[in-house]
Amino acid sequence: MTKERLYLYDTTLRDGQQTQGVQFSTAEKQQIAKALDTLGVDYIEGGWPGANPTDSEFFETRPETKATFTAFGMTKRAGMSAENDDVLSAVLNAGTPAVCLVGKSHDFHVETALGITLAENTENISKSVAHIKAQGREALFDAEHFFDGYKANPEYAIEAAKAAYDAGARWVVLCDTNGGALPSEVTEAVNAVIAAGVPGDHLGIHTHNDTEHAVANSLAAVDAGARQIQGTLNGLGERCGNANLTTLIPMLLLKEPYASKFDTGVTHKALKDMTRISRMLDDVLNRVPTKQAAFVGASAFAHKAGLHASAILKDPTTYEHVDPSKVGNSRIIPMSNQAGQSNLRRRLSEAGIDVEKGNPALPRILEKIKEKEALGYSFDTAQASFELLARRELGLLPSYFEVKRYRVTVERRKNKRNKMVSLSEAVVVVKAGGEKRLSVSESMDETGSDRGPVNALAKALAKDLGPYQEYIDDMRLVDFKVRITQGGTEAVTRVIIDSVDGQGRQWSTVGVSANIVDASFEALVDATIWKLVRDGAQPIG
Amino acid sequence: MTKERLYLYDTTLRDGQQTQGVQFSTAEKQQIAKALDTLGVDYIEGGWPGANPTDSEFFETRPETKATFTAFGMTKRAGMSAENDDVLSAVLNAGTPAVCLVGKSHDFHVETALGITLAENTENISKSVAHIKAQGREALFDAEHFFDGYKANPEYAIEAAKAAYDAGARWVVLCDTNGGALPSEVTEAVNAVIAAGVPGDHLGIHTHNDTEHAVANSLAAVDAGARQIQGTLNGLGERCGNANLTTLIPMLLLKEPYASKFDTGVTHKALKDMTRISRMLDDVLNRVPTKQAAFVGASAFAHKAGLHASAILKDPTTYEHVDPSKVGNSRIIPMSNQAGQSNLRRRLSEAGIDVEKGNPALPRILEKIKEKEALGYSFDTAQASFELLARRELGLLPSYFEVKRYRVTVERRKNKRNKMVSLSEAVVVVKAGGEKRLSVSESMDETGSDRGPVNALAKALAKDLGPYQEYIDDMRLVDFKVRITQGGTEAVTRVIIDSVDGQGRQWSTVGVSANIVDASFEALVDATIWKLVRDGAQPIG
Repeated sequence: MTKERLYLYDTTLRDGQQTQGVQFSTAEKQQIAKALDTLGVDYIEGGWPGANPTDSEFFETRPETKATFTAFGMTKRAGMSAENDDVLSAVLNAGTPAVCLVGKSHDFHVETALGITLAENTENISKSVAHIKAQGREALFDAEHFFDGYKANPEYAIEAAKAAYDAGARWVVLCDTNGGALPSEVTEAVNAVIAAGVPGDHLGIHTHNDTEHAVANSLAAVDAGARQIQGTLNGLGERCGNANLTTLIPMLLLKEPYASKFDTGVTHKALKDMTRISRMLDDVLNRVPTKQAAFVGASAFAHKAGLHASAILKDPTTYEHVDPSKVGNSRIIPMSNQAGQSNLRRRLSEAGIDVEKGNPALPRILEKIKEKEALGYSFDTAQASFELLARRELGLLPSYFEVKRYRVTVERRKNKRNKMVSLSEAVVVVKAGGEKRLSVSESMDETGSDRGPVNALAKALAKDLGPYQEYIDDMRLVDFKVRITQGGTEAVTRVIIDSVDGQGRQWSTVGVSANIVDASFEALVDATIWKLVRDGAQPIG
Repeated sequence: MTKERLYLYDTTLRDGQQTQGVQFSTAEKQQIAKALDTLGVDYIEGGWPGANPTDSEFFETRPETKATFTAFGMTKRAGMSAENDDVLSAVLNAGTPAVCLVGKSHDFHVETALGITLAENTENISKSVAHIKAQGREALFDAEHFFDGYKANPEYAIEAAKAAYDAGARWVVLCDTNGGALPSEVTEAVNAVIAAGVPGDHLGIHTHNDTEHAVANSLAAVDAGARQIQGTLNGLGERCGNANLTTLIPMLLLKEPYASKFDTGVTHKALKDMTRISRMLDDVLNRVPTKQAAFVGASAFAHKAGLHASAILKDPTTYEHVDPSKVGNSRIIPMSNQAGQSNLRRRLSEAGIDVEKGNPALPRILEKIKEKEALGYSFDTAQASFELLARRELGLLPSYFEVKRYRVTVERRKNKRNKMVSLSEAVVVVKAGGEKRLSVSESMDETGSDRGPVNALAKALAKDLGPYQEYIDDMRLVDFKVRITQGGTEAVTRVIIDSVDGQGRQWSTVGVSANIVDASFEALVDATIWKLVRDGAQPIG
């Protein structure tokens, strides 16, 4: 049986940018667009040219993509021709192969929000779509509030959709703009539009998650015949977000009836990047990834219940609906339950530390991890700090150097040119190779700007470790994440530091303290010790 | 038309406790149980007596509830009588009015996981349910893996469900244990069970969110005739979580067809507590509330897009599917470079600053916001900093004091008892009331522990503002949030500080810098100035 083609339209860079607190830079938009293209979506909606400086700049510098690059805008306003609508012109001037225009299909919005007649609105749709076609572009029409419109005035909602199709729109996208529609309503409305003469392979669905139905509504539309799905990575979007492509894509490739019925632009090979891409987006946004996210969440395949954990060890299908490796995720059996020890040994051997079953240090390590996690530490990501903790308990951690003390000064004052400038200075005193060594560094970078106290500390710590210097010279701090693990005045900060070295190794360490500088220093020291261990440095003096 | 009764069964304290990283204390379980009872759920599943110390202790000290308190356990094991199964006895000994036992309904699990015959399993179900009834308790049966079982061997899955019903189970709960079922499959299976003679008003549904369908699947089961829904607050639960009652309850009360068709134990008055209860649970778990959560999330009614924001001002129903006040949530129109002038004027008037349309300062303010957001600032939450920015542009911001310089020292060294301790000290120099004032503070709190450099800075800044002192004495820093807005070595930190005063006001300010201490200081200064403005302090000297 030959499969039908189902098209994926990504609007992370447009509707996704409507997420409260999300503000993409042009560089970030480029990075995300490239990731989407690797994944294999069919359309990338880049934003609204002319609406804000970032979007305009992005279209001027947009990357080359296999996906059809699309600019978003709105249908022409009444009382002017499509040619003379400057807002529409700005969108067309972005020069994208495809243009998606949002327009009204709900009579209430036409008459209340726009204050024009239904006939005028229908004409705005036809004329705008025709204008895009005339420019040799692919035209898409987002029928805003379609499902609410269909409930209020089905004839008009369908007239609006039909007008776009008749004017030559490649896709008429039915939008549940307010996110209030339920699957049965979506099914009924899609059936009606198809019956009215807009073929399913010209129908798209755009949903929002205000009742946690964005994914279900998208699939209901596909079941009824629609062949394009609009969504965003990690379900970003206005209010509660858009349909989550990070969930929909795995479903379409892995779950029946979709897997055998449809082809999408996403291959099974690309699907293995799904988890990585999802986490990359969180990194860009500096968000903590949602642990419980479907398919890609860190907890999505975590089996905590004792009964589940033991069954999983016999046969993973007992408690997993899909194989985590297919989406690039992995199974977790949290340390906290009885399966903890075997799991711990697995994690240690991954780190090249083989511990025989029943070693008395194993329960001690689990205990330590629990204690530290209660204080705010997290060893899910900070694998290197986890290794050091385990080595310490196993008596496998040489003592290389001792930090005697450190002092960091952050100052802000007027400079000669009477301009307020800030500068940090760090003094670190260590005993290494039998000698006490004082190092001092400041936070100024090449460009002469202040990179702050942690930067100064990192430099001072790496400045003179005597006999170990050769091992740490190729080591570099590449990322720094801070999180308040406990709100309020008692705020406790968790700092996670990513380091790399000349051999291309990357490792993460963690520090926790009410004092953010102290938390950072703890992570920096761990990073340094891990590097010495990995390079097999011998303790001296 | 008289409404049908739909029952709500909460398993936050049992399945919710399977969430990775969640471990309730007995006191926390009591607090949550009380909140659930105020809300009005019909059943509260407290845990598994005998499975772990916390659960056992909780049942000994469980609060009095209107809701039917339920103990969870599993059906008796083969080869022993229900009376002699010590695991089952431990559950019954908790003395709850209702007992819910999980048992197998999927042939594969009976034969592979349990390694017994299908007939033995069916007998385990009947005998266990009958035993509970014989003890005068209400019996519930969780048919584990029911939907996978129905796909593999419909006859047996139904036989297992029927066995529980025939033995006197008040509720037979169909569980999508692995979370892989889709709504159409749920509909078909529920229809089949009803056709086989288990009436809908004895059928419950228990779903998991592994494909973001937990809520949709629950409602599909209700549409097909089931009359009990099992779920958890905030969708806590194993892997991706359980059906989210925080979403389902608002839907059942506010959305059609459910609102006119069903009665639940939850009143519209109690529904107004939904947001508060959801946030309370996050507090208990020390989690950051999910902004995009349906109905209760801080972003659930946040209208960021310029077009949306302006329409909302005319009529909220244009972009809201329900009224936020019905669930105790509220509308937000965040300030961001997406937003238009009307939105800006509305937000200013909320702050008591009325600006006439067309005031030339308005575009300047929007411009400034764009510039600052490009640097990493965010005014979505930092309303107070937004106000100060606007007042500055409008010429409505008096200059109260000038910060000449500050210096913070963070030291870590051995104390007399040869223990490593850290201490921060801050010196702040301001010109206020015509005089230069030096203040110094350290980061030690009452308990003698180091609260870090920002704490020391806050205290020093508040120590002596001369003529303004009376205004700031009742001001307190209550929360502190840090985010890296730009990853990598060039990391830029955004700090958001929440302050409160004696009049119960709470306000948020933002600071951005590569230097985290400097970013914090900027937010602290904003917080102080905002307080002076709000209290109408007159600039002196």
